[in-house]
Amino acid sequence: MQPLPYIRGQQMHEFADAAAQVMARCETLGTLSQQPTCLDRRYLSEQHKLANQLTSGWMIEAGMTTWQDSVGNIWGRLTSSVPNAPRLILGSHLDTVPNGGKYDGMLGVVAAISLVTMLEGKHHKLPFHIDIVGFCDEEGTRFGTTLLGSRALTGRWEEKWRQLKDENGISLESAMEAFGLNFSDVASASIASTDILGYIELHIEQGPVLEQEGLPVGVVNAIAGAKRFILTVEGMAGHAGTVPMSMRHDALCATAEMILAVESISQQRPGVVATVGKITNAPNGVNVISGRTHFSLDIRSEDDALRDSVLAEILHAFNAITIKRNVTLSSEQTHSAPAVHCDETLTSALIQGTTKSGLTARVLASGAGHDAMAMAEICPVAMLFTRCKGGISHHPGESIMQSDVEASLAVLFNTIVDLKHD
Amino acid sequence: MQPLPYIRGQQMHEFADAAAQVMARCETLGTLSQQPTCLDRRYLSEQHKLANQLTSGWMIEAGMTTWQDSVGNIWGRLTSSVPNAPRLILGSHLDTVPNGGKYDGMLGVVAAISLVTMLEGKHHKLPFHIDIVGFCDEEGTRFGTTLLGSRALTGRWEEKWRQLKDENGISLESAMEAFGLNFSDVASASIASTDILGYIELHIEQGPVLEQEGLPVGVVNAIAGAKRFILTVEGMAGHAGTVPMSMRHDALCATAEMILAVESISQQRPGVVATVGKITNAPNGVNVISGRTHFSLDIRSEDDALRDSVLAEILHAFNAITIKRNVTLSSEQTHSAPAVHCDETLTSALIQGTTKSGLTARVLASGAGHDAMAMAEICPVAMLFTRCKGGISHHPGESIMQSDVEASLAVLFNTIVDLKHD
Repeated sequence: MQPLPYIRGQQMHEFADAAAQVMARCETLGTLSQQPTCLDRRYLSEQHKLANQLTSGWMIEAGMTTWQDSVGNIWGRLTSSVPNAPRLILGSHLDTVPNGGKYDGMLGVVAAISLVTMLEGKHHKLPFHIDIVGFCDEEGTRFGTTLLGSRALTGRWEEKWRQLKDENGISLESAMEAFGLNFSDVASASIASTDILGYIELHIEQGPVLEQEGLPVGVVNAIAGAKRFILTVEGMAGHAGTVPMSMRHDALCATAEMILAVESISQQRPGVVATVGKITNAPNGVNVISGRTHFSLDIRSEDDALRDSVLAEILHAFNAITIKRNVTLSSEQTHSAPAVHCDETLTSALIQGTTKSGLTARVLASGAGHDAMAMAEICPVAMLFTRCKGGISHHPGESIMQSDVEASLAVLFNTIVDLKHD
Repeated sequence: MQPLPYIRGQQMHEFADAAAQVMARCETLGTLSQQPTCLDRRYLSEQHKLANQLTSGWMIEAGMTTWQDSVGNIWGRLTSSVPNAPRLILGSHLDTVPNGGKYDGMLGVVAAISLVTMLEGKHHKLPFHIDIVGFCDEEGTRFGTTLLGSRALTGRWEEKWRQLKDENGISLESAMEAFGLNFSDVASASIASTDILGYIELHIEQGPVLEQEGLPVGVVNAIAGAKRFILTVEGMAGHAGTVPMSMRHDALCATAEMILAVESISQQRPGVVATVGKITNAPNGVNVISGRTHFSLDIRSEDDALRDSVLAEILHAFNAITIKRNVTLSSEQTHSAPAVHCDETLTSALIQGTTKSGLTARVLASGAGHDAMAMAEICPVAMLFTRCKGGISHHPGESIMQSDVEASLAVLFNTIVDLKHD
């Protein structure tokens, strides 16, 4: 790696040391998994609790006051000595998808802690508190609804979520109780928008752009909007040996046709990605014709109107398939988020921080959703991306370079120390 | 229903009473389920044990000696007073598919018990023992390998099955141990072919032929051969929001295309049915592109050569899909059974028994596999079908009429009392 100017030559080794600490801590968090063979850390699991405890310990070590809020987010504060100081929030999420990687989410939390260590060490008396949040659920893997952590901050939880079920039939309400939380107390996790300077999230890119252009970091200007659905196909189960092919109403065959429709329609419409990532089949016996399936649909675009137009096309195709095959289809929307545009002022500050660090300020959009989407409802948001290998994420192959973490820390450092508070 | 002549007028009410008993006992067995919301009774489950205990009690009540063999089949014997008598085996299986019906399998066991009650009551001193067997596993739902019960009788268990796993990762060996059995003792369940007069199995048709022709029973002349495979598609998992459609290697999309290939190829080839009944997907997250799937393939025909030719066509299509999508496919054959033709002498006896009962002797083939396929390796086999509603089976809608059970009992009674022993 080429030496970077960063800020003041004498701090170079500090960024390198902090980056090494970040890499080591991501490794450690990557061992906390509810499955022995892969990284899988879902909301309200035993490993969620362990991750919060570990993170809280690092925050305390960095000189922060820590607390866990009523939804299960872990917080730390580096308190400003200025009276009535507002708060600058840094952070990301600590949950993972099943068989996920060890940087998606975690990087933004542990990098912020290492950054605070550097600020505290240099006695920066900034005119704002630095709050770090480790969100408890961004992926939505356990209950099919995303951003549970950040949406609790914005007061956007819904009463009906009480009965959301995980794949073992455990309700969100019961899972919270088992964790030591109370669904009815979630409102107390919401925070006032009046004293927030902004929210800055560092995250791996999860895409191939920065790698292709040979850049360690990128500044995000927008986050794609997403809609998600759970769909149910009801056919007719039957004996695999005795029901003639012509008399079948095979729910899995109908679903297969729908999966291919999602794929082919979205392939033809640039700017949109659509994915069936989850499927369950019933009775799911080797010698039984499928009677029912449930499957998920996730569709995204930076252009909400384009996304909805492609969605309509997909649902139209689904409808034709149900008629042709004499099966029924029902759907439930589990998530809807419009595309979010980052705050111009905060984003300009990140661009300047990048330039001051001697790096090219590449501005790009995010195809993935992030906690910043929810946070945009209550405060200005900005995001910095760290290059990742092959654009791979949500997979054990997720990989980043320590030198890129060093660059990311420098950009955040240079952004924050110069941040104005009006 | 029209009164049937059956045998000797005074026995009419006995057949009716026995049929009522059979219906009630199927109801009772139908309550023993490892799932609260549907009938699901798999090999080596707690409910398998309960079903054996219940059946054993009914056998004892019918005057039989009972025992459980080393694989978990439950047996009862009505002992002949003739020295060195051979055994006539009646029976079927007591396991079910998930969300199955209460007659598939059970009917053949409980009807045989009620039949023995009638024989015992009339003091028939037949020149052969009547053995009733309730097979522990015919469906193969738990371990993906069928006919485990009857194939233990024929000495066809394989050492490698020790490590077959159920969907929770429990091995066959461990499950047997938990049940109180020992994998290493399975050989002792095998029986000598030398003293078996034959095996007669009563089973619901599981198809629509008898209903369409208005007949209560049918005599089976052949059972379709089947092959089964578990296939694994390996693609590349990734983030549902950031990996462009054109860069994906989505295992679930590839599988969807394979499922539709199975359907369309078999639709074009009369005499063959092929089914993908089971699928699991990984990581199976709503926002993760599928990285791997496992799915089953079941293919059947009364014509082995035709079946293998269609199978080759399907595998050829699979191969083209893997090349086009740059995914990998591996397959494991879990079951292979050639078509079986029933014993001519024993089948003639069933036809005569049908005629003597005043019924039309419709001869038909079975599209479904049965324990009789395995038993054919060691003795003459014959099968009687009872009409079922809509041809539905492997589904809670499975339904039969009591009057058809009465007819079935009459045919078996008239067949058995006249059965010759050379």
